[in-house]
Parts: sequence; structure tokens; C-alpha cells
Amino acid sequence: MGNCLFCKIIAGEIPSTKLYEDNEMLAFLDINPMSPVHFLVIPKKHISNLFEVDTEDAALLGRILNKAQELAKTNGCEEEGGRFIINTKSDGGQTVDHLHIHFLGGRKLGWPPG
Amino acid sequence: MGNCLFCKIIAGEIPSTKLYEDNEMLAFLDINPMSPVHFLVIPKKHISNLFEVDTEDAALLGRILNKAQELAKTNGCEEEGGRFIINTKSDGGQTVDHLHIHFLGGRKLGWPPG
Repeated sequence: MGNCLFCKIIAGEIPSTKLYEDNEMLAFLDINPMSPVHFLVIPKKHISNLFEVDTEDAALLGRILNKAQELAKTNGCEEEGGRFIINTKSDGGQTVDHLHIHFLGGRKLGWPPG
Repeated sequence: MGNCLFCKIIAGEIPSTKLYEDNEMLAFLDINPMSPVHFLVIPKKHISNLFEVDTEDAALLGRILNKAQELAKTNGCEEEGGRFIINTKSDGGQTVDHLHIHFLGGRKLGWPPG
């Protein structure tokens, strides 16, 4: 995890536009937004991807996803909603090996989802 | 919720191809699959969408998402992964007003995700 991009963002070594931070998670804007509202929520603990989560991490996972939906509402998407996405490994198109939840809103998302 | 499609599936009034069931959640195949592996995991409790989740529901949410990733692995996607999606309200393309997590795997998912 010494070379993990998101661990560096958490450590403040790489700048980000933060939306929320507490002792166990960080939310920040995606640098390549795919919609008018596009942010990520990540655990500060380095977990490579969703497949690495265990029963013990499930409560943390729930808190992160709950925070993501709160941030979606407070960032202008309460009425129209949006899409929460967790890309996992190669077929999912995961590009950073640190668990992250995407939220995309501010436009109508199509189907299929990629 | 008397007319909720997913509540009827939970009650067994509408058939589904079940992958997993316990006292608080149900997993079943999507009837309009968008990938070779495409299933849903839903809480048995009627929650309209992710925006209706509260702090008290966060642990349940974590257990459902953790089960979704376990099922992705046991349904042939452990190596290549896939995408977990929660569509919320109109911009998210939510079509059934009962919280559900999609998993799509078995092919490379593109970006943007809809």
C-alpha cells in the first residue's frame, strides 16, 4: 500500500477536493467526473477491493455506503437520485486497488451500466 | 408496499431463481440480465431506496453488500470481479422501489457506467 494512490490522498501527499472526512473514511471528488456530481467514498483502512471485505468489515462498509447516500443528498441529488457503484477487479473496471464507492448524479444514468 | 414487486418475490407470490436467502435478505437472478452473471440482493424489510436508509439500517446494509460480494465469488466471478450497483430514484434508473444491489459480472464492464 506504499504506492496506493488513495492511501496517498488520505495521507495528504496528493491533493483532493474533500467533501467529508472522519476517522474511518474520506469522501472526495473524482478527478475524471462522468456526471455533474461524481464523488468517491473510501475507507481509510487499506482494503484492496470489495472481495477482500470480511464479516468484521461489514459494519464499516455499511457506514461508508450510508455516508455516501447522505452526501448524494447534500450535494444536490436528493430529488433525482443517482447511481452508487463499486467496481471490483478487472471485469468491474477497477483502476485503483483501494476499495471505493462511486456516486454519479446530476444526469440520467443509462442501462446497462457499462 | 402491498404492490411492491420485490415484496411479492420475498413472499413467494412471484417466482424467482434464488441464489441465497436468510431471515433478513434474499438474492435472486435478474430477469433481464445485462451480463452473464447478473443477480440482485435485497433486504426483506421494505426500504424504498438507498436514500431511505438510516444510521440504524447501516449494519444491515453492510451485511447485504458483504453477502453480495460473497455471492459474486461463489458464482464464478472471483478472479475477474464485476460491478456492484445501487440505482437510486429517477436519475439512477431505479425501476423497483425496494432497495436492491445489482451485481454484474462475467464480462468486462465499460466506463462510464451508464
